[in-house]
Amino acid sequence: MAAENQGREGGISLERLVFFSDAVFAIAITLLVIDIKVPELADEAVAGELSTRLGELAPNLYSFLLSFMVIAAYWLAHHRMFRRIVWVDGRLLWINMAFLLCIAFQPFPTALLGRYGNTSIAVVVYAGTQIATGLLLTAVWAYATFRHRLVAPDLEERIIRASMLRGIAAPLVFALSLPLAFRSAALAEYSWLLLLVVNPLISRFFPARAA
Amino acid sequence: MAAENQGREGGISLERLVFFSDAVFAIAITLLVIDIKVPELADEAVAGELSTRLGELAPNLYSFLLSFMVIAAYWLAHHRMFRRIVWVDGRLLWINMAFLLCIAFQPFPTALLGRYGNTSIAVVVYAGTQIATGLLLTAVWAYATFRHRLVAPDLEERIIRASMLRGIAAPLVFALSLPLAFRSAALAEYSWLLLLVVNPLISRFFPARAA
Amino acid sequence: MAAENQGREGGISLERLVFFSDAVFAIAITLLVIDIKVPELADEAVAGELSTRLGELAPNLYSFLLSFMVIAAYWLAHHRMFRRIVWVDGRLLWINMAFLLCIAFQPFPTALLGRYGNTSIAVVVYAGTQIATGLLLTAVWAYATFRHRLVAPDLEERIIRASMLRGIAAPLVFALSLPLAFRSAALAEYSWLLLLVVNPLISRFFPARAA
Amino acid sequence: MAAENQGREGGISLERLVFFSDAVFAIAITLLVIDIKVPELADEAVAGELSTRLGELAPNLYSFLLSFMVIAAYWLAHHRMFRRIVWVDGRLLWINMAFLLCIAFQPFPTALLGRYGNTSIAVVVYAGTQIATGLLLTAVWAYATFRHRLVAPDLEERIIRASMLRGIAAPLVFALSLPLAFRSAALAEYSWLLLLVVNPLISRFFPARAA
Repeated sequence: MAAENQGREGGISLERLVFFSDAVFAIAITLLVIDIKVPELADEAVAGELSTRLGELAPNLYSFLLSFMVIAAYWLAHHRMFRRIVWVDGRLLWINMAFLLCIAFQPFPTALLGRYGNTSIAVVVYAGTQIATGLLLTAVWAYATFRHRLVAPDLEERIIRASMLRGIAAPLVFALSLPLAFRSAALAEYSWLLLLVVNPLISRFFPARAA
Repeated sequence: MAAENQGREGGISLERLVFFSDAVFAIAITLLVIDIKVPELADEAVAGELSTRLGELAPNLYSFLLSFMVIAAYWLAHHRMFRRIVWVDGRLLWINMAFLLCIAFQPFPTALLGRYGNTSIAVVVYAGTQIATGLLLTAVWAYATFRHRLVAPDLEERIIRASMLRGIAAPLVFALSLPLAFRSAALAEYSWLLLLVVNPLISRFFPARAA
Repeated sequence: MAAENQGREGGISLERLVFFSDAVFAIAITLLVIDIKVPELADEAVAGELSTRLGELAPNLYSFLLSFMVIAAYWLAHHRMFRRIVWVDGRLLWINMAFLLCIAFQPFPTALLGRYGNTSIAVVVYAGTQIATGLLLTAVWAYATFRHRLVAPDLEERIIRASMLRGIAAPLVFALSLPLAFRSAALAEYSWLLLLVVNPLISRFFPARAA
Repeated sequence: MAAENQGREGGISLERLVFFSDAVFAIAITLLVIDIKVPELADEAVAGELSTRLGELAPNLYSFLLSFMVIAAYWLAHHRMFRRIVWVDGRLLWINMAFLLCIAFQPFPTALLGRYGNTSIAVVVYAGTQIATGLLLTAVWAYATFRHRLVAPDLEERIIRASMLRGIAAPLVFALSLPLAFRSAALAEYSWLLLLVVNPLISRFFPARAA
């Protein structure tokens, strides 16, 4: 693929773009841990308070786990799309950059959710970030596949639609949680568990693999 | 290209240099978010103040967006240059290292602009960093293309000049904003929007692609 | 191997997965240093206190060294497994992601051990993290080699078992240290030195290399 | 080279080791900036104090520049060695890991020098780190070339010796600065400027390139 692409004068190497994206994914996912800070206690307070203070980190741990898995899922979806994409043009590059901006931004909403997870505003900021991230990833795919611009000409419509559906599913789950957030932050967060069900369902009914 | 280069005893592998550069780009661009810190509030103050305090992060968010796009643009320009460069010598390596030093430095002026964006000094430090970064990238290109030292012998002069022009354009915009900064920090920052117009104009009138 | 794998529609590129894993390893191992903070002293206190305060960083330095070597050992083991793995499926990907989550998490237990190394709770959290990490890496191998699913069909049983044994050894050492931790944190930490002996012993008696 | 190496059962892929090393280099070099912190000032103090406080960051900026260039030089030396190394065994891997540990550690002595550059202890810690780093890199080369173990059999002795000399030169300069450090921290730091002269001199009198 890289070879085909390099044939175009002034084009962008697919390989270097994928490498750059992977590096941003890996750094963002590993930086999440920076938010889980070791509690600072005076020597005489350690014996009595350390275990309690560590227990209070549970929400931070939860948001670390959640965001790790969310970013891993974006990585996998990005990976699947770019296995089908054979050329890159300037516009695709910038849509992908806007998507990477959302990936690089993830440590902030993650830390916010870890610290203020019981407030609607933290839940809204978190869900909002995920909606933007998911829509931009879908935009990458929509742009690349429109009239088969940047994918193989024989890529089946069925596969294109399945990937599109999968891309829209996650933003949809987060969007549905927004009205819940104003009633109860916890309820909205529980509704995100739908994510665990939605993708396997889409994979079963709209298979993206060749028959 | 790597193959040709490796033929030279004692030379530097183009591939490893490009990889190293890409990694520095990716880390610097992802570290920008570290500056956007979750506000620390006492439990009883959360309900009343959290949304206000998050709103106060708007300048940090703005400088995050700005620097992300600026670094992405440097990455793209670097990428385009290194698609044409076929050999690397020790001097090119060190000019590139000085350029990467500026890239690795970006989180500092970004954080400064996020915190003190209404002061001339923050604007001057930010613009100054961009001028240095842009000029060093242009120096990479000027050194590599002088007498076609490190590029293909048949690379057209027209393409060389167009890349040079594009390299100088961004530092020029930032340099022009310096006198404005002493009048009004905001005015200088608005003038940077010229960047959105300059590159497309150059691409139109001095195309770098083969006809 | 990548070529074979790419033949499968909808599959995951082995190469990109290995790259992503390596990047997470490299970032986690380099972030460990962030926990070793330069002491903050008033100007008049520097002459009298700086050397004492630097000496107090010894436990942080120790936990930095320990975790660096532990992560390096995981990297090497991961590397050896993935040299044998020829295909990746969705489940292997997610087991590997759960393993990488543990790798990305390492800076937290490392910082905790550096700050509160004399408490049982820090030792338990540290050992617990290592048990989870080691078992997940063993799970990667167990899943990949079960019925030779994702490895070469002619891979010898002897080699499969030796790698499994090596994977379980480290979690076992850490598990044995858990009861010790409640008696004496120091004793538990000393017991970890067994790690230096266990792997060479396994390598001698259950060689993983072809005869 | 990777191909030759992969022929050895149980061996370590040269390519993945070099990639891992490069990633650690890139992350350590980019993390240096984290030490340069934006000063925190109350709103009414900004106009009067910001420029002074930024000026006080000069030593941090100096140690950032110094360490960036030192790590870049290590990267280049590492790169040159690994262009000659054709196989990796377990011991080389661990010597290289100990070297990478020193690279990953660099942000600490850099921050210490930036904050307490006028004290002998900061200078000694910094120089000590560089001596350890340089000696370990030389050990990588000494181990790999002893009896031509891991390099091409026809690699000239002259080239082996020149690389060795270059490896020892930097630790020597730092070692010579240690006695100076106890008289005057500034004097020791100035003596490091010898580094700018030593390597070019060695390159001239003991060329590592084929004639």
